Amino acid sequence: MKLIVRISLKKSILDPQGEAISNSLKSLGFSKLNSVRQGKILELDLEETDPDCGVKIAKEMCEKLLVNSVIENYSLEIE
Amino acid sequence: MKLIVRISLKKSILDPQGEAISNSLKSLGFSKLNSVRQGKILELDLEETDPDCGVKIAKEMCEKLLVNSVIENYSLEIE
Repeated sequence: MKLIVRISLKKSILDPQGEAISNSLKSLGFSKLNSVRQGKILELDLEETDPDCGVKIAKEMCEKLLVNSVIENYSLEIE
Repeated sequence: MKLIVRISLKKSILDPQGEAISNSLKSLGFSKLNSVRQGKILELDLEETDPDCGVKIAKEMCEKLLVNSVIENYSLEIE
């Protein structure tokens, strides 16, 4: 099964990459842009067919390695 | 309105970052993992209320700056 992990910076954390993208877009003439925030997406391909087990494994991966919970939030979805 | 741009490497393109993450997870004992692919996610906050116009603007942004269409695919969703 495939699982998608969406990792984004918490709202209170500055995002210089997103800001750089936002500035570039504005300088290209996109004036209707308020802001950009950049995040990561991970596609996990698991050898597991049970959705509950898959989500449990993915959560453990996020907590042990993938996500820095001090500055990042994450969400999981099954594809 | 908020739009989410999901950018991922095309299937035929090697993803060394994803592979590094996969190796790290395996060395932590996650044996049920087949593979990991890493991508980017961009949250665009637009000053626009019409969904069609918003999507049109976002597509233009992707084609002009955000996505390298030689190696990357993207998808848009309205949040």
